[in-house]
Amino acid sequence: MFENSRESRTSLSEYGEFGLIDHLTKNFLVTSEATIKGIGDDAAILDFKDNKAVVTTDMLLEGVHFDLSYMPLKHLGYKAVMANLSDVYAMNATPTQITVSFAVSNRFPVEALEELYAGIELAAKLYKVDVVGGDTCSSKTGLVISITALGAAREEDIVYRSGAQTNDLLVVTGDLGAAYMGLQVLEREKEVFKVNPRSQPDLDAYTYLIERQLKPEARKDIPPLFKALDVKPTSMIDISDGLSSETIHLCKNSKKGVYLYEEKIPLDPAVISVCEEFKLDSTTIALSGGEDYELLFTIAQADFEKIKANPNFTVIGHMAEEGEGMHLITRGDQKVPLIARGWNAMKEED
Amino acid sequence: MFENSRESRTSLSEYGEFGLIDHLTKNFLVTSEATIKGIGDDAAILDFKDNKAVVTTDMLLEGVHFDLSYMPLKHLGYKAVMANLSDVYAMNATPTQITVSFAVSNRFPVEALEELYAGIELAAKLYKVDVVGGDTCSSKTGLVISITALGAAREEDIVYRSGAQTNDLLVVTGDLGAAYMGLQVLEREKEVFKVNPRSQPDLDAYTYLIERQLKPEARKDIPPLFKALDVKPTSMIDISDGLSSETIHLCKNSKKGVYLYEEKIPLDPAVISVCEEFKLDSTTIALSGGEDYELLFTIAQADFEKIKANPNFTVIGHMAEEGEGMHLITRGDQKVPLIARGWNAMKEED
Repeated sequence: MFENSRESRTSLSEYGEFGLIDHLTKNFLVTSEATIKGIGDDAAILDFKDNKAVVTTDMLLEGVHFDLSYMPLKHLGYKAVMANLSDVYAMNATPTQITVSFAVSNRFPVEALEELYAGIELAAKLYKVDVVGGDTCSSKTGLVISITALGAAREEDIVYRSGAQTNDLLVVTGDLGAAYMGLQVLEREKEVFKVNPRSQPDLDAYTYLIERQLKPEARKDIPPLFKALDVKPTSMIDISDGLSSETIHLCKNSKKGVYLYEEKIPLDPAVISVCEEFKLDSTTIALSGGEDYELLFTIAQADFEKIKANPNFTVIGHMAEEGEGMHLITRGDQKVPLIARGWNAMKEED
Repeated sequence: MFENSRESRTSLSEYGEFGLIDHLTKNFLVTSEATIKGIGDDAAILDFKDNKAVVTTDMLLEGVHFDLSYMPLKHLGYKAVMANLSDVYAMNATPTQITVSFAVSNRFPVEALEELYAGIELAAKLYKVDVVGGDTCSSKTGLVISITALGAAREEDIVYRSGAQTNDLLVVTGDLGAAYMGLQVLEREKEVFKVNPRSQPDLDAYTYLIERQLKPEARKDIPPLFKALDVKPTSMIDISDGLSSETIHLCKNSKKGVYLYEEKIPLDPAVISVCEEFKLDSTTIALSGGEDYELLFTIAQADFEKIKANPNFTVIGHMAEEGEGMHLITRGDQKVPLIARGWNAMKEED
């Protein structure tokens, strides 16, 4: 299962819980001045000074959120951190610390957990967050990862989901749907591999999509960009479940309606061509795909001039009165109701 | 399996992830002034003002940490919160918020999760913490619960594991071993039940032990008691894994040795009698049993007068130079090495 793992396989039982945590976290240094005490006591001690603290948490389960047959453990560790940091950026805050808990069965050698932690360590280093705690326990079945991220923000900078006003512009960063199509490509290759293990897939055409699925990046560049552009969004959310369900979240929290224009939705050319190959509608994928970790936000129309020339941003619609409802305006200029078809964890097993 | 659950069984799929969270958390109100925004955005917003923040996290898995055949879900929810709050008290801090994530299979009806959340809600209410976030997802196997607790403390009040000095007194709150013996009683009853489902166990003699196992309380009374007595421990830890392994943690973190006196270890009479019944050595149980959620701490000898009359505290030993080693002094006045035999999650499945 761990095709790239090294030859050696050290049993987890050689370490025991405390030894394992010590071993895996030995490279984690406290680098943020917001961390007074990291791993090693009953709790970590953090200093948010004059800032407010933000906290968010996510749990990932093998077989539900990830498939280790095509998700390398290092990537999994990295992505699990990104999913949490993305929520912190969506508050217009700066992540400062994470805690990492996992449950793992004895079928995993220590080397596998080292790979997982290498991904977590890389993410922590690149995004300048300290790993300040966690918990490790045995699982009788698959791998479970639970990460909590903390961040800091000045109170006046915090952006909630609930502040959108009628006529505000709806704006998205980056492009959408690529992570989902990367997953489709990987799942297809897995099926091919099952039939013919000697097949050598040529995945060059899918590099961008696979990278978006296996190594997503949270938009840490966006909060400082807002500051530089002197823009404060009126509402914001990160896109983890698909554009349609996140747009609906903003509308419901802000008690507004929305007009979202299909033709404005930013798609990478690779998404369009692979959607054709898979006979999928690219708009549906962008609306429902999820795992893009882009930011969706609203701004006052008066701020349009400040963002219009920036390649990171695409205006895709505008807010309306709540009573007007939530609509997608198609390329054919038809008005259809916006429906949440986002990935829904609870319905996966129905 | 849910013997006490109500007749109705509502499928999880009737709610979906967001609906389920909304349903389960609808009673959770923000009551702490340290919580600016609770559930409902990408992250919660907290205000620690001039205090430092403490953060700790624990993960619990069905079949590893709990057995639903004798652990009612309401108790499980309560206990999961206690395990985390106990870590916050062990820093001499006040818990302020928790996040709760869980993974659950479709074999659980909504009513089962309502029971789980009733326990979490009760714990949050009694301990005055806000539930500010979480995550819900489907599990293909058992129930997984991951809780993160946040707390606040003035910097000068925080007690680490690392501050014990040579000759400091080693002190423990409450009594030890009862939670473990409660578990033994429950496991025996489960075996009896398997053989004869009509047996009506008389558990009156075991009430205290079973309560310590199924409804432990974190020692929220202790940090204010220290304040009232004008005592600041030099080091502190909570007893989740057994007295011996926690004592060793204090020694290693403080770079000290210890003399721990067997005859001083506080045992409830019920523990002594049930240990006789089970032919177990009560000292071994107190040293290795775990889940007592009492606090273990060290104080300067000069502070002995302040605590000696208090029934919450028992002096069980004293710290020594690191080179002297870590010892248990038996009732027979023999000096034996103190060994960590605490419950070790990683070795459970060997």
